[in-house]
Amino acid sequence: MTTDLAYALDTFGLLMCALLVMLMQPGFALLEAGLHSAKNLVNILMKNFADFAVAGLAFWAFGFALMYGGGPFLAGYEPALNAPVAMELLFQLVFAATAATIVSGAIGGRAKFSGYLIFSVVLTATVYPMLGRWHWGGGWLSELGFHDFAGSSVVHAVGGFAALGAVLALGPRLGRYVGGKSVALPGHNMALAGIGVFLLWIAWFGFNGGSQLSFSTTEDAVAIAGIALSTYLASAAGAVAALLASWALFAKPDFSMTINGALAGLVAITAGPDVIAGGGAVAVGALGGLLVIGSVLLLDRLRIDDPVGAVSVHGVVGVWGTLAVGLFGGANLGVQLLGTLCYALGAFTAGFVGFRVLHLLGLARVSANDEVAGLDVSEHGTIGYSTTDLLNQPVVMSSGD
Amino acid sequence: MTTDLAYALDTFGLLMCALLVMLMQPGFALLEAGLHSAKNLVNILMKNFADFAVAGLAFWAFGFALMYGGGPFLAGYEPALNAPVAMELLFQLVFAATAATIVSGAIGGRAKFSGYLIFSVVLTATVYPMLGRWHWGGGWLSELGFHDFAGSSVVHAVGGFAALGAVLALGPRLGRYVGGKSVALPGHNMALAGIGVFLLWIAWFGFNGGSQLSFSTTEDAVAIAGIALSTYLASAAGAVAALLASWALFAKPDFSMTINGALAGLVAITAGPDVIAGGGAVAVGALGGLLVIGSVLLLDRLRIDDPVGAVSVHGVVGVWGTLAVGLFGGANLGVQLLGTLCYALGAFTAGFVGFRVLHLLGLARVSANDEVAGLDVSEHGTIGYSTTDLLNQPVVMSSGD
Amino acid sequence: MTTDLAYALDTFGLLMCALLVMLMQPGFALLEAGLHSAKNLVNILMKNFADFAVAGLAFWAFGFALMYGGGPFLAGYEPALNAPVAMELLFQLVFAATAATIVSGAIGGRAKFSGYLIFSVVLTATVYPMLGRWHWGGGWLSELGFHDFAGSSVVHAVGGFAALGAVLALGPRLGRYVGGKSVALPGHNMALAGIGVFLLWIAWFGFNGGSQLSFSTTEDAVAIAGIALSTYLASAAGAVAALLASWALFAKPDFSMTINGALAGLVAITAGPDVIAGGGAVAVGALGGLLVIGSVLLLDRLRIDDPVGAVSVHGVVGVWGTLAVGLFGGANLGVQLLGTLCYALGAFTAGFVGFRVLHLLGLARVSANDEVAGLDVSEHGTIGYSTTDLLNQPVVMSSGD
Repeated sequence: MTTDLAYALDTFGLLMCALLVMLMQPGFALLEAGLHSAKNLVNILMKNFADFAVAGLAFWAFGFALMYGGGPFLAGYEPALNAPVAMELLFQLVFAATAATIVSGAIGGRAKFSGYLIFSVVLTATVYPMLGRWHWGGGWLSELGFHDFAGSSVVHAVGGFAALGAVLALGPRLGRYVGGKSVALPGHNMALAGIGVFLLWIAWFGFNGGSQLSFSTTEDAVAIAGIALSTYLASAAGAVAALLASWALFAKPDFSMTINGALAGLVAITAGPDVIAGGGAVAVGALGGLLVIGSVLLLDRLRIDDPVGAVSVHGVVGVWGTLAVGLFGGANLGVQLLGTLCYALGAFTAGFVGFRVLHLLGLARVSANDEVAGLDVSEHGTIGYSTTDLLNQPVVMSSGD
Repeated sequence: MTTDLAYALDTFGLLMCALLVMLMQPGFALLEAGLHSAKNLVNILMKNFADFAVAGLAFWAFGFALMYGGGPFLAGYEPALNAPVAMELLFQLVFAATAATIVSGAIGGRAKFSGYLIFSVVLTATVYPMLGRWHWGGGWLSELGFHDFAGSSVVHAVGGFAALGAVLALGPRLGRYVGGKSVALPGHNMALAGIGVFLLWIAWFGFNGGSQLSFSTTEDAVAIAGIALSTYLASAAGAVAALLASWALFAKPDFSMTINGALAGLVAITAGPDVIAGGGAVAVGALGGLLVIGSVLLLDRLRIDDPVGAVSVHGVVGVWGTLAVGLFGGANLGVQLLGTLCYALGAFTAGFVGFRVLHLLGLARVSANDEVAGLDVSEHGTIGYSTTDLLNQPVVMSSGD
Repeated sequence: MTTDLAYALDTFGLLMCALLVMLMQPGFALLEAGLHSAKNLVNILMKNFADFAVAGLAFWAFGFALMYGGGPFLAGYEPALNAPVAMELLFQLVFAATAATIVSGAIGGRAKFSGYLIFSVVLTATVYPMLGRWHWGGGWLSELGFHDFAGSSVVHAVGGFAALGAVLALGPRLGRYVGGKSVALPGHNMALAGIGVFLLWIAWFGFNGGSQLSFSTTEDAVAIAGIALSTYLASAAGAVAALLASWALFAKPDFSMTINGALAGLVAITAGPDVIAGGGAVAVGALGGLLVIGSVLLLDRLRIDDPVGAVSVHGVVGVWGTLAVGLFGGANLGVQLLGTLCYALGAFTAGFVGFRVLHLLGLARVSANDEVAGLDVSEHGTIGYSTTDLLNQPVVMSSGD
């Protein structure tokens, strides 16, 4: 009976954490939607909604077997956790979907919906599991002692550098760089961005905490508590560092920098929340927050158009977080460097080659006319907001606030 | 002490799942709000907010006793679960509230707030528990071997067919069918609809997973893992099927069809997530996704105005999900058919008669003037968006994204 | 091993409840954002986002030690719960952040961002823990038998009366009281307010339920179930009472009154959900819902400008909830009165003196020009909505809803 309860608690804990990670889907959807133009709202929502469906099915059918062993559709897989195989799959599935969805915002505003869907399937059925196998599947990186607890490299650098490859293959949005000058294309709705980043912040505790993969022993409890606190400290430090740095640089505390700073703190601690605590977590997060500002400014100077900062937040900071386990968490720095570079290079190649192939198939980028009209109309035949409706409503005063 | 822990885990699991189901209230509120006009925003929010309050109080006072036994206010009720009665009530209460709230979107844009509130109380105090007693209260349908694990019929078909009855009693919105032609009245805010459907997707894992009603044994853990995975597979398949079908039918992948497809997959698997797995769950969900498109198009042809597709998603697909347990899950198909038809008929009657009675009392439908002005102004004396405020804000460029 | 499982479940339960309480941050952010002007959207989001970062860091560094003992950064702290110290801190940290964030909406539209950040740090590093020590830290109020289970006084009255002090020190927004008349400045987006209040409602079950602080015994399970049900009953009763009262007073059921009524019900039950059940919880919540309407109307008559009703919901009703434990829950009414007055007075003083000092430093209130322009532009150099973008999007009909 004691065994039953441990098994039951481990299973229930994985379910709760999987649902928290699933909360990252609306988190990214809303963050990206807010930072993009209103004319692309439905397209952003559709990408983040549909990729969760196709990526999960692809990972169930093929990806999980490639990453962890067994045959397609879980056939013949021996459970690795003290929980049913179905729950193990579900928990890993939401991580695969996260890697896929990171790409969607970076390529927003000009990528074809069809091409993105195909890319999502390929990424989660083959690229993500083949790369993930190196470490989490017990492959060569884990044999070398590589340490990436919850996926600064395996999930975030993979998503971020796949995004970089895709962005370079696609080119910037029309009007983004004019006559050698960078033109800001402001996001249309900071309320959506704000909801999104709050959901991501909360979801991350399931992402990192759940990566302990069991919940039922004293050691698990101590580990999860430490992981959760380090996750908080790094995220708070990343937010504060980016807030203060943006204040110093731009004379005013910047909203998008601050929220990206918090996300950077989260990405940075994701490789080592189990071995970095207290002041170390604060330092790792704060440096992540500063790094993301530098990276966003650098990419803009390089004329690389990433409308949501995904390459910087997930890619650049994912690499930093992996190295930080060498600097602050006792891992071998050389192995950390080797591992994260292999992840970044592998994912970049997949993103770049993938979107070049899609380009040859005519599935990479919408036409200039369609881009100007907005992807909601051109790709989905609809609009995000019925503005005539908004404007025609009678204007009266509220009586009661 | 071992017993204590099982009791404690069962109680805590029910609480977490109850809160997930409660997340369906903002889920439906936002989905409906997004698919309705801006002039009805506050009314939609008010209905979904107030029905959770009145429906829960009504179910606590009377409904629970009618459905499961004992007297009003839980008096003399013998616990059926390995958890305190208060937690058993809370978990069942959020299901009752879900059944009530399904109706709100379908009748949106023309129903009176007062009439809706009265209907919600009657539904959760009497109709839902009397129908639910047939199966979950140990009544005649459970004796026949009817299988509806988490409520494709008991909750969703009841909500969906009550909505159909109410919609037929109310008639379509003004301007919806003009000169024999169907006129689309587009939703005003797809961001709200998108947040809503993501919340519903996540909440459903508590709805189906929590319906196991205990969490503490190995058998529970295995069951819950399978339920969760089948829930995911059906929803993903429903989304993909509807996405592809809408692409084929309308030449472009349609957002509202895709999100309704995911919801249809969820409703479809809700009767049998414990007995339908893998490919079966995919098939049940995909057929649900196709069915919802056909049903939405058919209802429009029949001039039945359901602005959010609730009749199709919850009613029609709820019936399908119940039958699917006969086709894919080993239940007796005849009993499944009998049971779901009785639920549909009972709920339809309640909805139709209920709103006819409200009509006689002058509480069913707002005046034409009020409908044109919008229910926010006419029913609540306010507006959802302060648009002059929106338009008067200074337009400057953001420095940092 | 049994001990391990109890420790593991207690730790996991605290984590889940801490994350639920963390959901209050977006809850308050969105509620406040919706009830404020569009020109202050980013400022509201920034305040609620940044205060979670700085308040948590300040509480980790100093506040926790002041409240519960030990040295800075948890040094030398002896665990009080059957869970790791890191988890105990995280759970208390989100409560401290809640107290801080309550202030943000009340002072919205005219307070400087810099001053607010400084105030948040001081509040969570010193004021909140010094006051909280009286009861939760084992101080003089707990010795007298004061009963405030989850913080009607310790968190909500402290936040609400600190807000009152700050509001009096700052003065009303420009244009709010003109020629002796009260001018409503309506909130700009009821959808945001609606999402926010739903999130708060759900989060509160973690706030009250988690305050049991352990989850692993039969007694814990019974207590948590009762707490959760009382929390629901009070909130539903508060919503219904405020809905009906606003209907009677203003001839139409008012949205902002209804949602504040639900919040009032939640604040009211927070002191005694462990000792007030059933009809008692309904009465406590309903009276809270009525009280909040009276308080909002009274404050308006007194020319005290609290744009979101935080002083009424958290301050006035926090006092009521504390007294209610004397009236309905068996606590000593005199001690309850003494305790809650001390909390209210201490927090009011901190808020008033704090913002007077900030005023002397030139950090309290923005200039009149900046206030008229909106704090998004003046404090953050950005705007919340790109309205030209919204208006320029092509208007077409949606094909599929």
